[in-house]
Amino acid sequence: MSDAAVEGPLVNPDPQHPDLQHPDPYAPTRPVGASPLDDDPAFPLHRNGKIEVTPTVRIRDNAGLALAYTPGVGRVSEALARDPSLAYDYTWKSNAILIVTDGTAVLGLGDVGPIAALPVMEGKALLFKEFGGVDCVPICLGTTDVDEIVETVARIAPAYGGVNLEDISAPRCFDIERLLQQRVDIPVFHDDQHGTAVVVTAALRGAAALEGRELGDLRVVVSGSGAAGVAITNMLLAAGVGDVVVCDRVGVVSRERTDLSPVKAELAGRTNASGLGGSLTDALRGAEVFVGVSGGTVGVEAIEAMADRPIVFSLANPVPEVHPDVAHAAGASVVATGRSDFPNQINNVLAFPGIFRGALDAGATRITEGMKLAAADALAGLVAADLAPERIVPDPFDPGLAQTVAAAVADAARRDGVQRAGRAPQGGV
Amino acid sequence: MSDAAVEGPLVNPDPQHPDLQHPDPYAPTRPVGASPLDDDPAFPLHRNGKIEVTPTVRIRDNAGLALAYTPGVGRVSEALARDPSLAYDYTWKSNAILIVTDGTAVLGLGDVGPIAALPVMEGKALLFKEFGGVDCVPICLGTTDVDEIVETVARIAPAYGGVNLEDISAPRCFDIERLLQQRVDIPVFHDDQHGTAVVVTAALRGAAALEGRELGDLRVVVSGSGAAGVAITNMLLAAGVGDVVVCDRVGVVSRERTDLSPVKAELAGRTNASGLGGSLTDALRGAEVFVGVSGGTVGVEAIEAMADRPIVFSLANPVPEVHPDVAHAAGASVVATGRSDFPNQINNVLAFPGIFRGALDAGATRITEGMKLAAADALAGLVAADLAPERIVPDPFDPGLAQTVAAAVADAARRDGVQRAGRAPQGGV
Repeated sequence: MSDAAVEGPLVNPDPQHPDLQHPDPYAPTRPVGASPLDDDPAFPLHRNGKIEVTPTVRIRDNAGLALAYTPGVGRVSEALARDPSLAYDYTWKSNAILIVTDGTAVLGLGDVGPIAALPVMEGKALLFKEFGGVDCVPICLGTTDVDEIVETVARIAPAYGGVNLEDISAPRCFDIERLLQQRVDIPVFHDDQHGTAVVVTAALRGAAALEGRELGDLRVVVSGSGAAGVAITNMLLAAGVGDVVVCDRVGVVSRERTDLSPVKAELAGRTNASGLGGSLTDALRGAEVFVGVSGGTVGVEAIEAMADRPIVFSLANPVPEVHPDVAHAAGASVVATGRSDFPNQINNVLAFPGIFRGALDAGATRITEGMKLAAADALAGLVAADLAPERIVPDPFDPGLAQTVAAAVADAARRDGVQRAGRAPQGGV
Repeated sequence: MSDAAVEGPLVNPDPQHPDLQHPDPYAPTRPVGASPLDDDPAFPLHRNGKIEVTPTVRIRDNAGLALAYTPGVGRVSEALARDPSLAYDYTWKSNAILIVTDGTAVLGLGDVGPIAALPVMEGKALLFKEFGGVDCVPICLGTTDVDEIVETVARIAPAYGGVNLEDISAPRCFDIERLLQQRVDIPVFHDDQHGTAVVVTAALRGAAALEGRELGDLRVVVSGSGAAGVAITNMLLAAGVGDVVVCDRVGVVSRERTDLSPVKAELAGRTNASGLGGSLTDALRGAEVFVGVSGGTVGVEAIEAMADRPIVFSLANPVPEVHPDVAHAAGASVVATGRSDFPNQINNVLAFPGIFRGALDAGATRITEGMKLAAADALAGLVAADLAPERIVPDPFDPGLAQTVAAAVADAARRDGVQRAGRAPQGGV
């Protein structure tokens, strides 16, 4: 879940294994206290930003001007005034989305505000275009009020074909996504929830296949009940996992708890089939899978107490809940992290470009559970032939990755019947 | 004023001169009643829109991903959280603007709504990039309420360095511009007002120079008291024109009128130095200059009754208030229109790319009267050496046009002291 935190030098969470300390290849090379702008290669790369808005038609003379601008453009506008659905054919709406944040949950930095979020939104726009061919406009909101955010985005939506919500803190993100989707007829997708859930689901399919396990036989313990934790839980249940147990800072989210927020209380009603209580360590005892999206820590003993050859997705950034080497030493069969310097990086970039590409290609009005599951299945399928303990998900640069995800998502959109009215069925990318 | 209306086949307003009928080179070639999508070259050119969002850095491997996205981008975000002004250095904010419409005054089509306005906004974005190197994001608003528009744009402004308002009807456009500029620390500019005014002022400088007249000696009659008429009036007064008389549908906007809106009443207090009353025809008697931005018509007799060798800017689209040939036949020395198929097109594209380029280069927090006058002077200067009755303004494709305007505007911003805090003085483009 590299989306959810910025990585930094890794601190070994297990002081008993100092030899497992890993150097961080991306650690800044500057001496402590010096200006970060001097010698961190990330800064020159970000100079003046990472995206631009460029013409797709070149206008070289007044004749061209008269087609692309007045008077020619007036005839196109007149046609759109008569039939607004033509905007999908004669404007960029069919390929352009808003990428919206309020800066409240930026990577692992937290609530740093809309301006500090902009480099991340630009990065997302870069990846959307590079991998999915999607045009993205960053919207960094100067408000954190749920109703104001919904209202603002709904008002600016007419020129766009989708909305990717990004780095908005829980529990507001749940309401914003739901309320906004009710207001607009274009897909709304909170990547920190669903993008992460899609990649985790794909990774779990791969890990389970390697270990010869069925999803229905697994007990998965999810540590963390924020945006990612809730979405992962929902998707794993939809994918057929037998039992998901969610833990927050207090312990297992169970029906017996009286301190739960509405979101968690609802979750308690649909999870924890075996009725566990107690702490995260209690929940892990005998569990086949650990998924950490908490930022907390998990001791080596807790991993050792899991089922034989457990699957460990330790996704907190910059410090995984349990160090990958510690997890392996404790018996884990397959380990994934959110970091780019370990194998099996759970990176949303595997999902979001293809998901929106497919949704736009299909003319989808929203992104269904079926479309998300199709994305996860497509990702799992891409590594099925060369599945290995260090390759349970594709590499972001695997050729054809986003196109394969997009085709599966577009097919699912057609199956689920969420294409907009008048949208003729057509092929994928 | 090609911004203010879509051109179509020209109808000769003077039935006594049927031989002056001009063919329109941009008239659709389709037979009446056929689909406009079939054979109008504007439609294939607009297929899938005219702009895209592209990366300025190429990410080809995981090492690049780790700089442009996590973890590298997190270090940039962290720096911006500490010092938000760094956004001007490490994001696209220093070069990106919002182009905002509510679709209420789109070209000559009127209130066609936000979606029908999108092709025009894309066209504007294309021209901003092509001529000024400015990145523009189209915002087509699903609201026409003044307060909602101001609030919405203020909320999405953090990621942008300027706001170009476009095709918003009067009188709401005046309040929106003023209230929004009070809310944000980036330049807000309503192009239909000020872009038009800059080009008209430049054109009048050229025409007056050709005729050996001083601006202070001129009486200019402005027909039309909407966005363009009000802005042209203000700018001509600021440029030193001796007397400006504004006419609306009723007649001369004078202090004696009791039916005036607040905007027009305020205008009446600053214009009409000679205290005229009556109709547009009355006002034109003996006047040196006519500026039409009304969509009405002016008879040949009214032009004949003007001062000797009058200057006629007949900018209504698609049908000029007086046909250029009719104006010339009635004694006009210099004639300009809003159309691309006559000489001296008063086209906002001469102004807006350079004005925003200059404002962004200077780090201006708003666009002053001085910056607008500097733009007009720069435009006038560009044709000073080869001034002619059919060349009182530059051609949009004249080399270096926007750069010259930008340098003048940036200089004026520095003179006017509207650079943002901490902005080091530096050269223009």
